[in-house]
Amino acid sequence: MSITVVGSVAFDSITTPVGSRERCLGGAATYFSLAASYFTPIRVVAVVGEDFTAAEESVFRARSIDLAGLERAPGKSFFWAGNYLQSLSEAKTEQTDLNVFADFNPQIPTSYQDTQFLFLANIDPVLQLRVRQALPGAQLVCGDTMNYWIHDHRDALLRTLAHLDVLLINDTEARLLSGEANPLRAAKKILTLGPRALVVKHGEYGATAYLGPDLFGSDLPYSAEATVPPVFRAPALPLDTVVDPTGAGDSFAGGFFGYIASQPAFTPAVLRRALFYGSVMGSFAVERFGTERLQHLTRAEIDARFAALRQITHLDSASDPK
Amino acid sequence: MSITVVGSVAFDSITTPVGSRERCLGGAATYFSLAASYFTPIRVVAVVGEDFTAAEESVFRARSIDLAGLERAPGKSFFWAGNYLQSLSEAKTEQTDLNVFADFNPQIPTSYQDTQFLFLANIDPVLQLRVRQALPGAQLVCGDTMNYWIHDHRDALLRTLAHLDVLLINDTEARLLSGEANPLRAAKKILTLGPRALVVKHGEYGATAYLGPDLFGSDLPYSAEATVPPVFRAPALPLDTVVDPTGAGDSFAGGFFGYIASQPAFTPAVLRRALFYGSVMGSFAVERFGTERLQHLTRAEIDARFAALRQITHLDSASDPK
Repeated sequence: MSITVVGSVAFDSITTPVGSRERCLGGAATYFSLAASYFTPIRVVAVVGEDFTAAEESVFRARSIDLAGLERAPGKSFFWAGNYLQSLSEAKTEQTDLNVFADFNPQIPTSYQDTQFLFLANIDPVLQLRVRQALPGAQLVCGDTMNYWIHDHRDALLRTLAHLDVLLINDTEARLLSGEANPLRAAKKILTLGPRALVVKHGEYGATAYLGPDLFGSDLPYSAEATVPPVFRAPALPLDTVVDPTGAGDSFAGGFFGYIASQPAFTPAVLRRALFYGSVMGSFAVERFGTERLQHLTRAEIDARFAALRQITHLDSASDPK
Repeated sequence: MSITVVGSVAFDSITTPVGSRERCLGGAATYFSLAASYFTPIRVVAVVGEDFTAAEESVFRARSIDLAGLERAPGKSFFWAGNYLQSLSEAKTEQTDLNVFADFNPQIPTSYQDTQFLFLANIDPVLQLRVRQALPGAQLVCGDTMNYWIHDHRDALLRTLAHLDVLLINDTEARLLSGEANPLRAAKKILTLGPRALVVKHGEYGATAYLGPDLFGSDLPYSAEATVPPVFRAPALPLDTVVDPTGAGDSFAGGFFGYIASQPAFTPAVLRRALFYGSVMGSFAVERFGTERLQHLTRAEIDARFAALRQITHLDSASDPK
């Protein structure tokens, strides 16, 4: 089933130890859409400026991504410049121009009204909540956030968290949101804030899903299974070269949620596989600059990498003698 | 089969956010021996001073650890004091008194001469090499080291690495030893220095084994299997409370190498399970101060935790509906 995603579509100027790119297509909604598009149809809600041309649009069209909710506004698109010269784990922001994004007021096209899967990328939690409430039929809502909203807009964020099924953040954000240094205690605390599940991304160390007690309970329409252990871990694929970490987290989210939306039911087994697919899509994203690698994948490439992740984590192995 | 371990037996004074302990039994060889003793018989080569009493000795005896190679020297035992108040990931050393350890010249008892499994805990690489050469019958040699030896005694360390089968270090040490920030490239480089396999410990994120091309090749007497993927990852168990991180790495090594030595053959499947057992023993070690938790485990507790690690990493789950 389709996912509606709301978030940024932007231009990024990126410098990494490998090289740099000027004004390449970026933004959380872009990375998410491209990654998720290999699993399920995607609908975008975002705003761009007059600098968003047919060339950028064709990147979405080539993946059959629905742009009915992409607003064109006078002015320039969101622009971000940053570098990873100090660390591949954290970007140093050089410039952020919100431009048309400053007045973004998400409009949901009528054709999106039947949305059952909703992804709220990292934007103002007030807008996240507005979109969530504009799509009351959404059965599974997954969202991201960042330090800025946790720090400076905590009340608005807490109101949004109360309406999330799955929150996807990284280690630092989990620590900041919970005030707990211990990852397990941080997760337990965050699961009292609304989300039924928390996925914490660890960069090169993969990701951990923490499941709240009612996630696969009888109250959830698309679940029909017994309890599962409350923690699941997916590795990251060891990569020889990380060309550009930009968008890794959003691509992870795209693989994760895209896979879930593609399945007939949301079950514990689906959640585990979704975490692996998230890791797979994150690993592709960083192999080239911007969205380059995500634009031309095949499902066979994706599944080969999924098999590799299984291979490097499972005690039984396809290469064991029979 | 028995493992001979050479390393420190010491007294530690430890402060963590949970509390503190004065002069509790510690040292790399101690943690390693206790953890490994749940899998296979252990023989210790170490030196202690006159402050090592029947009380400390009984901790080893209770686990049937062979102390024929434990030298008693005039003076005091190795003493270390440190705290984890800034970070549970890294100790701040307050005091190190080598005492009798300063003149340690490992003596191998005749009864150890048939040693087939040798663990070289983190000591001067010159001593590591001497012990390795004094036990030429050892078929599998596993060793640890630390930043100090990598930095200030690189040549001696490189001579020792040439005689190791498995090197067990942490992320920082791997980076320092290889000069590579990328973990995969670091591993590839280290595998050219001698070890047939490298195990890199990631603390709360578990550990990764990197396998050299000849590890399970036909030249290794106790291996008879086909090639395996060159990387395997084990998670760490998420823990609510880390009481004392001291000895976690040595306990990991004990579980890892103890399990390998307990098996009839060193195969890819055994290596994978060994990494899980390493993680299991590391998780026990940190749950109480010093060696408290490692002294009174049962194999059932160990296997239950092994099952939990499998559960949180494997796509198929025992709790899935049949």
